Amino acid sequence: MAFPPEAITARLAEYAVTTNPANWPDSVRREALRSFFNVVGCMIGGARHGMVDIADKTLGAFAGAPQATLFGCGRKSDVLHASLINGLASSIYSFDDTHEVAVVHPSGPIAAAVLALAESRPVSGEDLLTAFALGVEMTCRLCLGTTVPPADGSFAWSGTGITMSFGAAAAAGRMLRLDTQRMRVAMGLALSEASGFRAMHGTATVAFMPAHGGQMGLRAALLAERGFTAGLNGLEGKSGYLSVFCTKPDIDALAGGLGERFELLRNTYKAYPCGIVIQPIIDACLKLRQDHRPDPDKIAGVAIQASPGAMALCNNRDPKDEMQAHVSLHHWTAVAFIRGTARIVDMDTETAVKDPALMAFQRKVEATLDPTLAGDQTEVTITMTDGTRHVCRIEHAIGSKLNPMSDADLERKFTGLAEPVVGAPRTRELIDRTWGVGSLADAGELARAAA
Amino acid sequence: MAFPPEAITARLAEYAVTTNPANWPDSVRREALRSFFNVVGCMIGGARHGMVDIADKTLGAFAGAPQATLFGCGRKSDVLHASLINGLASSIYSFDDTHEVAVVHPSGPIAAAVLALAESRPVSGEDLLTAFALGVEMTCRLCLGTTVPPADGSFAWSGTGITMSFGAAAAAGRMLRLDTQRMRVAMGLALSEASGFRAMHGTATVAFMPAHGGQMGLRAALLAERGFTAGLNGLEGKSGYLSVFCTKPDIDALAGGLGERFELLRNTYKAYPCGIVIQPIIDACLKLRQDHRPDPDKIAGVAIQASPGAMALCNNRDPKDEMQAHVSLHHWTAVAFIRGTARIVDMDTETAVKDPALMAFQRKVEATLDPTLAGDQTEVTITMTDGTRHVCRIEHAIGSKLNPMSDADLERKFTGLAEPVVGAPRTRELIDRTWGVGSLADAGELARAAA
Repeated sequence: MAFPPEAITARLAEYAVTTNPANWPDSVRREALRSFFNVVGCMIGGARHGMVDIADKTLGAFAGAPQATLFGCGRKSDVLHASLINGLASSIYSFDDTHEVAVVHPSGPIAAAVLALAESRPVSGEDLLTAFALGVEMTCRLCLGTTVPPADGSFAWSGTGITMSFGAAAAAGRMLRLDTQRMRVAMGLALSEASGFRAMHGTATVAFMPAHGGQMGLRAALLAERGFTAGLNGLEGKSGYLSVFCTKPDIDALAGGLGERFELLRNTYKAYPCGIVIQPIIDACLKLRQDHRPDPDKIAGVAIQASPGAMALCNNRDPKDEMQAHVSLHHWTAVAFIRGTARIVDMDTETAVKDPALMAFQRKVEATLDPTLAGDQTEVTITMTDGTRHVCRIEHAIGSKLNPMSDADLERKFTGLAEPVVGAPRTRELIDRTWGVGSLADAGELARAAA
Repeated sequence: MAFPPEAITARLAEYAVTTNPANWPDSVRREALRSFFNVVGCMIGGARHGMVDIADKTLGAFAGAPQATLFGCGRKSDVLHASLINGLASSIYSFDDTHEVAVVHPSGPIAAAVLALAESRPVSGEDLLTAFALGVEMTCRLCLGTTVPPADGSFAWSGTGITMSFGAAAAAGRMLRLDTQRMRVAMGLALSEASGFRAMHGTATVAFMPAHGGQMGLRAALLAERGFTAGLNGLEGKSGYLSVFCTKPDIDALAGGLGERFELLRNTYKAYPCGIVIQPIIDACLKLRQDHRPDPDKIAGVAIQASPGAMALCNNRDPKDEMQAHVSLHHWTAVAFIRGTARIVDMDTETAVKDPALMAFQRKVEATLDPTLAGDQTEVTITMTDGTRHVCRIEHAIGSKLNPMSDADLERKFTGLAEPVVGAPRTRELIDRTWGVGSLADAGELARAAA
């Protein structure tokens, strides 16, 4: 590594404060915009989810002056509340994005934080995108540098949970134009609130953890701006983040090649509203359905060769509610074969999870661990009642880095998310405005348009 | 242990929901009141600290309708903001309380949470005290059961930080009369936000971490009340709290003997506004000064035999600001010999930390590790310029369990904290009201009196 460990926080803070996006490759600015576009759609699409509504109503009772837009809601709230609620909406359907290697979904809470802040501290769309890209970069690097599974025990931590406050602090701190010293304070305070573990899997708290991290990162930057104090070496300091969250930090992944290597370029966008490791399975099932048009009643069994991640997180034959259905590979397999779709409405508790046809089909699905499979791979075999077998192998799921979502794919995804919430005309307008955010003189315009 | 590990969260939640304080020993109710009394004084005494002011002003800009009193401020704010700010005030001077064995300062953020809640959901003083006692009990048990140093690496975590949200969720959940299922949700959500590590030592974030935990526990209980979902086995569930925060949980300490053994009874109250491990050193220095009246200029050296905790946390000869002075044993040794006191004003940045006499004296203080010493023990030797030596050994610092603060001591402490903030007549009134909180029909009265 190119610099001593004791300078890690300072180095990252200095980069966050001083990096000039004019020096970034065009590809970085483009991927930042795609990440941002993708997650704004998710934010609007999740706005009316029941759990988002509970959080908004419960905590909105304590919210302050309406400065920041609650996306898709037609209302404003205070900046910190909007950051939390929009962040929650962005990931409530697990439909957001995923870094190709780190187990982290970086964009939603970062976007929520900078968008909320933009409505109280006017900023250009370009500066907003810079802050967003920086936050995503910091979150991905922190996750890569500290919690890449299967490092010792690290899988129990929620990678997205424990890295989000740091990225959000960097993003908000950049927008607030903190100096390096105050950026270090913001980072230290945010890191001291890093939290989240996987025992919350299959509940709304999975989406709450990163939303919370985003809100806390924003709060930390605001406090640092005003002179609150925190340890300046939050990452590498004695008894700091690195010492508690990992046994062997990868310092180069965390803080090497800043401004040269961009983890943001390895961000990917989900094609289906479910756990990332289920995506190849849905691909395979939809392909088998398209190619062979099997009558679901005549499918005797579905054998799924599943990656370690899919087995660890999504091997649940009997989801009890929507949040569990999100992350049940059995559920999505049944949906794919019976409905030929994999949409948000396909996991609604009232209809999908109680659908007898789905429940019956789930019993025919058997997942087996194949430790050689990557998270974007699977092999699915269906056996018909007459003994016929069909096999589909997916090497790279749609949306993975080697089979990426095109801009047109992202637009279709945005449309599917936003139309049920804000209607078709407004969706079209929002698509254009979001693609064009970089040229807005006041980024708050976008947020206001998304009300 | 009396029950299987898989039932720990459920067992604690059931206890929190159903325990009847009429069945608690009188000693528990009495110590709960003493803990509460002590920390209300701390809350008022810290209300005008510069860092509390920064946090209040910065985050107050986003606060909602004024329902809950900011202690010692003459203003109200929303319930969640008041919980944070009062919790921060309670521990900003490190003057609060400490469980005899666990490294945790349990009362401030719990008291802040239930007091804030009491102003929006009227509750009797007795019920408030019950909720408070329960929260303190849960926090102490969680800390004891998981992070008792010197367990592997656990010293890097802030015991108070990572256990506070759990206790606050239990306390607030009790006040909200959650059922066991929702109490488990509150606990799970709160645990998922558990955070804090010691790299923040010597900064305002040390006090912010537990205040944050208290606020998050309260928020979790409010969300659980409205039906938000979280993992029900937050403690023992796969990839849950116990798996990430400790290598060998002590299940009996955590969840054994509920309703029979009360950790609250082992709470102690600080006699001086500084790190708990400095307290015996101040005792010794003040005793030496009283017994021998040494001229500070004629003291050639002060040799301090220090406990492992004092060496690890407080061996700082050259504190740069007030937050560092809090936890510098050199600073307090100098103050004790030069001023014969150990008060809040003795660590004010503008005066104390820049006092040339203190700075010169600090250079004469040398601390040496004595691994056989407990946290409430020390031996201090002064050597005069003429070669005379005086030794003082402290077996149990004032305020430790075997040398406890009397009720009268606690009143003097309360007076010293509150008078500079709210004046003498109001302080007297508050002392009476706080001792009498258990008989208030509406606990909110106390909070309003403390404005």
